[in-house]
Amino acid sequence: MADQKIYQASTTAPVNIAVVKYWGKRDPKLNLPTNSSISVTLSQSDLRTHTTAACSASFPTSDSLLLNSSPQDVTGARTQACFRELRSLRAALEASDSSLPKLSTLPLKIVSENNFPTAAGLASSAAGFAALVRAIANLYDLSSSPTELSRIARQGSGSACRSLFGGYVAWQMGTKDDGSDSLAVEVAPASHWPTMRALILVASAKQKKVSSTSGMQTTVATSELFQRRAEIVVPKHMEEMEKAIKEKDFEAFGRVTMMESNSFHSTCSDTFPPIRYMNDVSWAAVGVVEDINRKAGKIVAAYTFDAGPNAVIYYEEANTDIVAGVVKGALGSVSGWESREIKAQASDVLDAADVEVLKKGITRVILTQVGEGPIKTEESLI
Amino acid sequence: MADQKIYQASTTAPVNIAVVKYWGKRDPKLNLPTNSSISVTLSQSDLRTHTTAACSASFPTSDSLLLNSSPQDVTGARTQACFRELRSLRAALEASDSSLPKLSTLPLKIVSENNFPTAAGLASSAAGFAALVRAIANLYDLSSSPTELSRIARQGSGSACRSLFGGYVAWQMGTKDDGSDSLAVEVAPASHWPTMRALILVASAKQKKVSSTSGMQTTVATSELFQRRAEIVVPKHMEEMEKAIKEKDFEAFGRVTMMESNSFHSTCSDTFPPIRYMNDVSWAAVGVVEDINRKAGKIVAAYTFDAGPNAVIYYEEANTDIVAGVVKGALGSVSGWESREIKAQASDVLDAADVEVLKKGITRVILTQVGEGPIKTEESLI
Repeated sequence: MADQKIYQASTTAPVNIAVVKYWGKRDPKLNLPTNSSISVTLSQSDLRTHTTAACSASFPTSDSLLLNSSPQDVTGARTQACFRELRSLRAALEASDSSLPKLSTLPLKIVSENNFPTAAGLASSAAGFAALVRAIANLYDLSSSPTELSRIARQGSGSACRSLFGGYVAWQMGTKDDGSDSLAVEVAPASHWPTMRALILVASAKQKKVSSTSGMQTTVATSELFQRRAEIVVPKHMEEMEKAIKEKDFEAFGRVTMMESNSFHSTCSDTFPPIRYMNDVSWAAVGVVEDINRKAGKIVAAYTFDAGPNAVIYYEEANTDIVAGVVKGALGSVSGWESREIKAQASDVLDAADVEVLKKGITRVILTQVGEGPIKTEESLI
Repeated sequence: MADQKIYQASTTAPVNIAVVKYWGKRDPKLNLPTNSSISVTLSQSDLRTHTTAACSASFPTSDSLLLNSSPQDVTGARTQACFRELRSLRAALEASDSSLPKLSTLPLKIVSENNFPTAAGLASSAAGFAALVRAIANLYDLSSSPTELSRIARQGSGSACRSLFGGYVAWQMGTKDDGSDSLAVEVAPASHWPTMRALILVASAKQKKVSSTSGMQTTVATSELFQRRAEIVVPKHMEEMEKAIKEKDFEAFGRVTMMESNSFHSTCSDTFPPIRYMNDVSWAAVGVVEDINRKAGKIVAAYTFDAGPNAVIYYEEANTDIVAGVVKGALGSVSGWESREIKAQASDVLDAADVEVLKKGITRVILTQVGEGPIKTEESLI
C-alpha cells in the first residue's frame, strides 16, 4: 500500500522594489534579461506572500495552486519550469539516498496567500514565485543556496529571483545562453543599511493594463532609445548603485533610483505604440519628492515607479519627519498611516496643485522598510 | 533737416508644427541645434502673426516692439541679433547705392499681433520671429532668400527659421561653428501635398511651465538617452520623413511623426529632474488616435506634441470623416468646430474613458491645414 502521508513545508517571501530596473528579455522563454538590476527587499511584516507546499500520494494526480483561495492555472510554461527544475533536484537527492521518500514523483498542492490586495498593483508575482520555489525547496529538503534557487525562480517570474534574498539584491544578467549564470546575489544584507524606509502611495488604477511581459518585448523590438539604456545606462547605474549601497550614501542611492525610474519609463514611452504607466497622480508624487528635496537642500527622498502608477518613495529613518511626516501632513486622511507612528508635519513646502491631485488619486499608503529574505514558518495553509 | 518720413512694411507669418522635433542646442548663443528637424507650415487663415516693421527719424531713439498691444523687451540678445543682422544687410545695400535712404541708422518700431490666444500654448515665438525678420527684410528691401533670412530668424527663436517657408520645411542643423550653414530649406511646397490637415486639441494648461530653452539644455546635460536620439534616431527619422513627404506616403509620415513625438518626450522625461509636457489629457488624445487607426486598419491619423499638453493630429483630407468627424462626434460641444464643415461621426470606436478625460481637459479645437510661407500685406498695424 502506498504512503498516504502528507508532506508539507511553509514559508513567507518578500516583495522587492527595483532601484535599477529590469525591463527587456533577451530570451523570453528562460526569462533572461537584457540588463542586470538591483532591488531593495521590503519587510514581510507589511508585504508578503505566505505559501505552503505539500505533496502526497493521496492528492489528485495533477499539481494544483490556490492563490488567495482562487485556483490558478499551473499548466503555463513558467510554473511548469519551476516544478520541473525543483523535482529534478529532489530526484537527484532521492537517487543518491534510497532511504528518502520519493517526493519528486508525488503531485504537488501549493496554497498561497498575500497579505496585501493584489489589486494594489504591487509586484506580487515576484513574492509569489519566490515563495513557491522556496516552499517546494523546503518541502524537498534541498540544500540549494538562495542563488541556486534564484535561477529557478527567475524562470517563474524574472524579478522573483531577487525576492530570495533580504536587503539589497542584484540580479546579474549573465551571458550564457542556457541562463545558468543569470542569478540573484546579495549586494548587502538588510543589517548593513537597516534604516532604509519606503512609503508607497497606492494610486487608483484606472489605466489600461499593459502586461509587463508583452510590454517589455515591444520595447526591445521598437524603442530606438532602449539599446542605449541596456548597453550604456544600466551598466553605469549598476556600478553607481552598488557603490551607493556599500557606502550607505543616500544621495547617490536616491539620484540613481530616480534617474533609473525615469530612464525605464522613458523607454516605455519611446516604445511604439507607446507604453505608459505613470499618470498625472504619479507625476504629482514626483513633484512632491522634488519639493521635499528642494526644501532639504539635498536628496532625502527618492521616487521610483514600476509597471503601474504607484509611487514608492525611499528615505532614511532619520528623515522620517521631513519625508513621510510632510506627506502625511498633506495626505493624512487616506488609510495606511496607522501602521507606523509618523508625526504629521506642515506640508506647505509642497506644491498645492500636486497635493490636490494626490488627494484625489491616492487610495492608501503603505509604510514599510528594508527587510529579510524568505522566512520558514510552521504556519500551514493546508 | 532730417527726413521725418515713416518707412514701413507689413507681413504675416505662419506657425509650424514639427514632425521631426528640434530639442537641444549645441550652441545656445547662436541657437545651433543638436539635430536637424522637419515641420509642416500651418495655414495663416487659422494661425498667424501679423507684423508691421517701421523706421523713422521721428521715432524715439530706441527700438521698440509691441506684441498684442503689450510693449516687449527688445534688449535681449535674441532680438538684438536679428536687428543687428538685418541692419547690417541694409547697411551693405546703402553702401553700394548712395541714393538709398539710410534706414539702417533709424530706430525701428515693430508692431505685432497674433490671431490666436498666446495662452493656447502654440509655438507663437516661431511665427513671431519669422514675421519680425520678414517684415524688416521687406522694410529694408533686402533681396535675401527665405533660406538666407532663416539664418537670422534662427537666432531669434530656433524653430522660427522654419516659418519662413510654406509647406514642408527642413531645418538642416549644419556643422559650422558660426552657424552659417544652419538653415531652413523647403522639402516640398504646400502645393505638392495640399491635402494635409491638422486638428489641434487645445488642453487647459495647468502644468508648471518649463521654458523650452532651459529645458532642452537640461536634457542635453543630463539625459543619458538623448545622445542616441541626436546621433542615431533623428538622422534616421529625417531621411524617412523626407521620403514620406516626397512620396506623399501618409502611413510613413504618420508613423515617423508619432515615433518622433514619443522619442522627444521620452528624452524629456529622461532628463534630471524630469521634464514633462504630456499629461493625462495628452495621453487620452494618443489613445483616441490609436483607436482611430485601429479601426481604419492603417495609420490615417498621427499625433504630435510640442512643449505642452496640446495634441496636434495630422490627417489627410480624404480621411476627414474617420478622423476629425469621429473626434467631433465625441467632443462636438467644445468650441472651434465652426471654422470648417466637419460632419460629426459615431465615436463608439473611441475608448470611453479617454473621451471622458478629453471632454474635461480640452478647451477648444483648431481645424487647419498645410499652408504658405510669409505673405506680404498692405495692412499696417501702425
